[in-house]
Amino acid sequence: MWRDLAPIGRHPDSRGYRRYAWTGIDLECRAWFKEQAEGRGLSYEVDRNGNQWAWLGDPGVGDAVVTGSHLDSVPDGGAFDGPLGVVSSFAALDELRGRGVRFAKPLAIVNFGDEEGARFGLACVGSRLTAGAVGVEQARLLTDGDGVTLPRAMEAAGYDPDAIGPDPERLARIGAFVELHVEQGRALDLSGDRVGIASAIWPHGRWRFDFRGEANHAGTTRLVDRRDPMLSYAETVLAARREAQLAGAVATFGKISVEPNGVNAIPSLVRGWLDSRAADQHALDTVVTGVEKAAREYAEAHGVDLDVVRESFTPVVEFDHALRDELARLLGQDGKDTELTVPVLGTGAGHDAGILSGSIPTAMLFVRNPKGVSHSPAEYAAEDDCVAGVIALADVLEGLACT
Amino acid sequence: MWRDLAPIGRHPDSRGYRRYAWTGIDLECRAWFKEQAEGRGLSYEVDRNGNQWAWLGDPGVGDAVVTGSHLDSVPDGGAFDGPLGVVSSFAALDELRGRGVRFAKPLAIVNFGDEEGARFGLACVGSRLTAGAVGVEQARLLTDGDGVTLPRAMEAAGYDPDAIGPDPERLARIGAFVELHVEQGRALDLSGDRVGIASAIWPHGRWRFDFRGEANHAGTTRLVDRRDPMLSYAETVLAARREAQLAGAVATFGKISVEPNGVNAIPSLVRGWLDSRAADQHALDTVVTGVEKAAREYAEAHGVDLDVVRESFTPVVEFDHALRDELARLLGQDGKDTELTVPVLGTGAGHDAGILSGSIPTAMLFVRNPKGVSHSPAEYAAEDDCVAGVIALADVLEGLACT
Repeated sequence: MWRDLAPIGRHPDSRGYRRYAWTGIDLECRAWFKEQAEGRGLSYEVDRNGNQWAWLGDPGVGDAVVTGSHLDSVPDGGAFDGPLGVVSSFAALDELRGRGVRFAKPLAIVNFGDEEGARFGLACVGSRLTAGAVGVEQARLLTDGDGVTLPRAMEAAGYDPDAIGPDPERLARIGAFVELHVEQGRALDLSGDRVGIASAIWPHGRWRFDFRGEANHAGTTRLVDRRDPMLSYAETVLAARREAQLAGAVATFGKISVEPNGVNAIPSLVRGWLDSRAADQHALDTVVTGVEKAAREYAEAHGVDLDVVRESFTPVVEFDHALRDELARLLGQDGKDTELTVPVLGTGAGHDAGILSGSIPTAMLFVRNPKGVSHSPAEYAAEDDCVAGVIALADVLEGLACT
Repeated sequence: MWRDLAPIGRHPDSRGYRRYAWTGIDLECRAWFKEQAEGRGLSYEVDRNGNQWAWLGDPGVGDAVVTGSHLDSVPDGGAFDGPLGVVSSFAALDELRGRGVRFAKPLAIVNFGDEEGARFGLACVGSRLTAGAVGVEQARLLTDGDGVTLPRAMEAAGYDPDAIGPDPERLARIGAFVELHVEQGRALDLSGDRVGIASAIWPHGRWRFDFRGEANHAGTTRLVDRRDPMLSYAETVLAARREAQLAGAVATFGKISVEPNGVNAIPSLVRGWLDSRAADQHALDTVVTGVEKAAREYAEAHGVDLDVVRESFTPVVEFDHALRDELARLLGQDGKDTELTVPVLGTGAGHDAGILSGSIPTAMLFVRNPKGVSHSPAEYAAEDDCVAGVIALADVLEGLACT
């Protein structure tokens, strides 16, 4: 499976993946999914929001057990974030068939579209639309860096953009959704475990800081006459790190856009994006309020105007406690791998499972990431750990869907 | 004249000019120059490096007096930086013809190509090639942001790139070059003068700082596990301001490039360009050495690798003292504008006149800029001051070229 998927969308220079929603690369990934589904005799369908489903059994029966993840990537992302969950889903089904189990409930494997939001700026578009967690009108206005809207991009890829919207009937047929994902931190590495269960997703958001000064000649404008927005931006980057450290949270300025971005011109505009997440809402508020307050002081000191816009926000997501406990029980009692302990851990990353947790019982399994590196070509999971993930997912699916 | 030139390359949103070398917009500006030359009965030619010349009299006679400037712009530049010198040259010729003077020497008006270096990253390419101040091989390798090389761009614009190279015969025919330019600072505004004479161009250079860290997930990577190059970049921006302030110099980070530049990814690379200039070499060295030392400390503290590359450097340019004194004498003695005092001032900006000063006697005139704003759509010179500039240039040309 990996062999066919691995080369798709891999950039020859960076060795990172550039799999953006509704591009030709994305369509290749989707073709791979369809092939995997049909090769296993599963019934394949695409829902109104472009998510792909592979069904074993009749979806109409209800109380289905669903697993899966996504195939798209961030710019120069790694091989595992997303695909590991989809590949492991198919592998876990193979494992269950090898065990000769009897399925008592319908089972589905899903590939959610546009999880990373790399192209249109909003993460988890496929699951958000399905769960009604983003408005149809708002989704229609999403535009990529080349000015192409989401509907136009879907249409160009051969999908009907008029159909997008909430899909409660589909969700009503699902009894549980379990997403397996490579861990994006080092908790499992530090605890020495191969597989973990998610407790919650930290609240997180994105804020855009627009520092507007005055473009001017870098060689001839006296320092005292300048209104240079790069200075207040720089001070704000450092303030964000300080505030995050104090609050035990994380805060990152990873994206910037500068105008006119000329070597010999003082910028007129420096636009920086703050990504911040914390274990609870109070800590997150403390960080963001602190950064914004500091940024306003810096901007004022440099004669720079500042606008701060919250571009997205997701409150804390507590995964379904009953399902989480059921997973812990299934993975503790299976008797096949008594060495396996399964810690329960929180995460700072958003996931489709987080979006769906508002509508249906969801849970997540994490596979150890030895260096914690993610969203990078260096992202990695050892083969042994991936196999342990597949076995754990198979155990969970067997416990949930089989008699 | 202004009416035809003003709309070319003006961006409808920013109202700034985007006139980049060898683009269609640049060709429109060049067509305008040719039209102005031919409309005045001047003989028009393009030299081997793509600079445009309009001759009154036979260039072969030698000891020619040349004036002019450039028509290209920085990204979202103003209307005056460059074009004021070209327009004023034609207007000064009209003024001299109106005065009925007799020309004793050949006179030429020149438009030097690619002065700003906005497209290929190296400033003053046209005059540098002519003066042998950049190697032909180096010039052939210049590449724009889309991967188009300078020769390919010249060829696409209908010019022969095989011809580029030093042009000593041409320079040998020139007795003096005088460039009129809008001031890019506030010295004339502060002294209350309309026109000034340049004494020297500050030494200046561009240094590229490549901070390389490790791309990682912005939500899940603990602060202590990060190697975030944005932090050391931010600290370095602030260090540059401090060092410049201490040395009485200027230092600017106006251009940045980030990879992967994703909101939820810690950058793997932050590349920032430092532009710094000072009144003398020692002060400039102090600034750049100080910034680099600080940057290395910051990078090390964050586990980030740093490469510093000097991309360009121009030592101090002292304009020809005899010609400078001659200009001061001509402008003080003309008797036509006894109110006009003409201060002598240094500048932090590079110019074609600075490049040529190594080969031939050159001088510059500056026209008052009430706010000192340049490289910006807000760049401005009052009409009265522009007229004073034309009269001063006409006086100088009359003194140098007429009997």
